[in-house]
Amino acid sequence: MFSTITIDLESWMERKYSFWRRLWEDLEIGYLDEDLLPLLLLLNIDRHIYTMSSCSGRIVVSDSSFPWSREETSIIFKKHEPISFEEFKNILSRKIVRRMWVNVTGPIIHLSTDSIEYALEILRLARNAGFKHSGIMSINRSKGILLELVTGVYMSQLVKIIDGPVIDINRIEALVNTMNNVLLQGKSFLDRLYREFSNRGFERDEYIIRDLKGKGLSVDELLRGSPYKSS
Amino acid sequence: MFSTITIDLESWMERKYSFWRRLWEDLEIGYLDEDLLPLLLLLNIDRHIYTMSSCSGRIVVSDSSFPWSREETSIIFKKHEPISFEEFKNILSRKIVRRMWVNVTGPIIHLSTDSIEYALEILRLARNAGFKHSGIMSINRSKGILLELVTGVYMSQLVKIIDGPVIDINRIEALVNTMNNVLLQGKSFLDRLYREFSNRGFERDEYIIRDLKGKGLSVDELLRGSPYKSS
Repeated sequence: MFSTITIDLESWMERKYSFWRRLWEDLEIGYLDEDLLPLLLLLNIDRHIYTMSSCSGRIVVSDSSFPWSREETSIIFKKHEPISFEEFKNILSRKIVRRMWVNVTGPIIHLSTDSIEYALEILRLARNAGFKHSGIMSINRSKGILLELVTGVYMSQLVKIIDGPVIDINRIEALVNTMNNVLLQGKSFLDRLYREFSNRGFERDEYIIRDLKGKGLSVDELLRGSPYKSS
Repeated sequence: MFSTITIDLESWMERKYSFWRRLWEDLEIGYLDEDLLPLLLLLNIDRHIYTMSSCSGRIVVSDSSFPWSREETSIIFKKHEPISFEEFKNILSRKIVRRMWVNVTGPIIHLSTDSIEYALEILRLARNAGFKHSGIMSINRSKGILLELVTGVYMSQLVKIIDGPVIDINRIEALVNTMNNVLLQGKSFLDRLYREFSNRGFERDEYIIRDLKGKGLSVDELLRGSPYKSS
């Protein structure tokens, strides 16, 4: 049996450059998760890839029935870097109406490519880099083959109920250290992904390269090695 | 651009029936997660689907540095049903050498289909049923289009370090209740998935239907309604 999926390349490219412009706007207004920037640039230099909203990993504290609840959830705290002991003690003293959860997540990269074959190659590279839960999420004529690259790194901890903390307050330091460990473990996968994608030949996107040069960025430097610290 | 992926239908069918036989062997030796059986039967009745190793959701307690660690991990406890207060107190008293984590996960269904178009239709049904993190994991000529259907339901709690419990032992009951809540929330998605897949027309697999009849199982009954309790 043959499966024939046609991607409208013209619309696909239009979307690529629209997301590319948005990336720089987000960066300017401080909306972009800066840990991601080198990886996002590297991916977009590839003629057959564009990136969408992504995350380098973060700590989110919510007041919600369950960690995955969308409705009836209020976000108490959100940070892409390690949290301090004092910060956490402050958070823990906050009044809640449901349950207080700490969610630490690893990086999530959303990208699109223009053929199934290339999507499978991206999945292979992502798995090599430890993004073991990656997959094709959908396929759309103009949006392309949409992929989500995800590691298995997460922690989702109940820390407080309405009656008070569920955790032993004498162990807060151990808990905060573990949360930060999990966050940094997640970030270390960005380095592995960067190296996996820079160590290969691929067709470059001349529009993106010209635009980067205009912004004073060297593509050769971007491709030379990972800007992420290995851990 | 056209993407052409060819599935070798003969090998694919061979694999389907091999997985089908294994399913019944696993059931006999008590290895199959029985909560899954009605859903797995329903899926395999579809001519274009076969299921692989899947899980209805479970509570796993591990002694490991991180919840996702594979090496240097020992599993202390594993159960597909709610856990009792006494069971958990017992677990918590166990000596550990790393960290003690409780991981509660929702259902994970692995299946294969024989075309991209059908894979996209399965993803659509899965998302409707709340399996929001579902995707195509790989594509292989003889294995087919491999999908993983996953919900966002999970909890991953640090409960003890070498020095002792991280949780307040006076709150164990609230914690155990929450863990069981999470598990049952996950199981409720099995019902939604069952209903999504039974409420549609599809090409039936006559080999599977004959085999089910031989085992004394009625296909009409399977298709009539969900055997899962709604929650």
